[in-house]
Amino acid sequence: MKIVVTGAAGFIATNLLPRLLEQGHEVVGVDNFFLGRREYVARHVHDPNFRFHEFDLLDRDRLVALFQDVRPVCVWHVAANSDISFGTTYTDFDLKGGTHVTYNVLEAMRLSGAKQIIFSSSGAIYGEPSVMPTPEDYGPLFPISLYAASKIACEGLITAFAHNYDIRSWIFRFGNIVGKFPTHGVIYDFVQKLMRDPTHLQILGDGTQAKPYVHVEDCLDGMMFGYEKARDRINCYNLAVRDQTSVNEIAQWTMEAMGIDPTGVRIERGSEPRGWLGDVAQVRLDTRRMEALGWKPKMSSREAVQRAIRETVLQLT
Amino acid sequence: MKIVVTGAAGFIATNLLPRLLEQGHEVVGVDNFFLGRREYVARHVHDPNFRFHEFDLLDRDRLVALFQDVRPVCVWHVAANSDISFGTTYTDFDLKGGTHVTYNVLEAMRLSGAKQIIFSSSGAIYGEPSVMPTPEDYGPLFPISLYAASKIACEGLITAFAHNYDIRSWIFRFGNIVGKFPTHGVIYDFVQKLMRDPTHLQILGDGTQAKPYVHVEDCLDGMMFGYEKARDRINCYNLAVRDQTSVNEIAQWTMEAMGIDPTGVRIERGSEPRGWLGDVAQVRLDTRRMEALGWKPKMSSREAVQRAIRETVLQLT
Repeated sequence: MKIVVTGAAGFIATNLLPRLLEQGHEVVGVDNFFLGRREYVARHVHDPNFRFHEFDLLDRDRLVALFQDVRPVCVWHVAANSDISFGTTYTDFDLKGGTHVTYNVLEAMRLSGAKQIIFSSSGAIYGEPSVMPTPEDYGPLFPISLYAASKIACEGLITAFAHNYDIRSWIFRFGNIVGKFPTHGVIYDFVQKLMRDPTHLQILGDGTQAKPYVHVEDCLDGMMFGYEKARDRINCYNLAVRDQTSVNEIAQWTMEAMGIDPTGVRIERGSEPRGWLGDVAQVRLDTRRMEALGWKPKMSSREAVQRAIRETVLQLT
Repeated sequence: MKIVVTGAAGFIATNLLPRLLEQGHEVVGVDNFFLGRREYVARHVHDPNFRFHEFDLLDRDRLVALFQDVRPVCVWHVAANSDISFGTTYTDFDLKGGTHVTYNVLEAMRLSGAKQIIFSSSGAIYGEPSVMPTPEDYGPLFPISLYAASKIACEGLITAFAHNYDIRSWIFRFGNIVGKFPTHGVIYDFVQKLMRDPTHLQILGDGTQAKPYVHVEDCLDGMMFGYEKARDRINCYNLAVRDQTSVNEIAQWTMEAMGIDPTGVRIERGSEPRGWLGDVAQVRLDTRRMEALGWKPKMSSREAVQRAIRETVLQLT
């Protein structure tokens, strides 16, 4: 099958590409290397079934031309700004890099006849919900970050295109995804900080923020399972685990994994219970829809975080 | 109070402006006359408390400069593409004219310190919901038009800006609004068609589509009431009536109001139960939140439609 992967040099895609290529698909990747890494793409460029194009998905003409040329059956649209706080500083960042880009992908699909889109949404769309764990049919959606606002906008675009242009869609609302080949995130941040200075660790917020962490291998298992089994026009699932991990726990486990004695580390915490403006501090996602479909993650949040810490330490040190 | 009104030459604003000016506010209107009418703005231009600027809200620099100059307290953001089917033909129309424009308004508010926004959203955001009448906390939101997708995107932008930049917001999810000074809509369409040819009426869809019609005077009463009484950071209300009117009823009543004998009219109906791609054919909105706040519309859907027909016939003939 011909497949386009957006954000092909990013964290999710770098873990996804070997799976798609092993399954025998012809894969065309696009990335502008804003967050993605050249060395991550370099892992696949020698595969004859992989082609890579470096350009910005905001370039609609180029994207449409590529889709007209490739005629993909399916698009894994996993390009995204994953730095939520960035979107608070540059307020049009998520509008462009999330909403506008997703419109461009959908328009390229419409014009080229591509009929399947798999999209990485986020549990952040629920804002600070009154129901936890939060189910997929929770409303109203009052996001507290421009990142989440953009994910909601993308979901709306996808469902409207799906309805009007006979496109089938799989929307996965992620918990926090962790694992190999990170480009960002709390684990990546802590490992880097402690490598630079093993006597000092700055934590954003007071460290009590707690979220369900999903290992990227579980995440991709879940997406592939959902793509196989769910066959509605719009298939929308929380993709998470049942437990939570706090930032303080992640700090503790990271020091342990790096062989650093925590008593020798001056830990500097913020005073707020959230990491940054727009951060949803407490997240729990209702995972019963995926379970009803027949899928469960193999790793708990604790297991996912601890494995990802080991992987990140190995990669960076 | 200094107030900016967007879409100042449109249907809602043309009815709104006399109220704001009578209340003694200084009002600055913006419109690009894409759907708005010069003759509607001309009704207010001699009021010393009214200033009008003709430009496109996509021109962010100009909008920001205007807000920096005016320093409004409050923005009535009622500019919108009201032609839903147009957005299916030109797929970036609502993205630009809805989502992008709303971002620009919010960014101009942020940069100038404006702290209140009143926004005209739509019951169309619920898509084809499984719960009717549909309450404000209905989910998931799977819109079937790009118009509705854009309204959802706007709501998300508003709530994220509200949270991050200390802005207070009033979001009203409208039923179908009818009344004086229309620029579009089924009543306007039928009256114009029957004026051109009183022996023939083409109906989009099979005419069974049925929605709650709200008279614009009730709509503005409700918005003003909500703005006065609801003081949360995000105030979100369905603004509708409890009953529905079908398009077939509107056709019948329009012929009656124009003194046309229906037996002499060749009525041509579509075969689909919806008017156009993306049209939500059956709409019923739960109005209990507005009722709990203390407000009810004066006119039923039937009364609103019949009055609007009379007003439109008077205006156009």
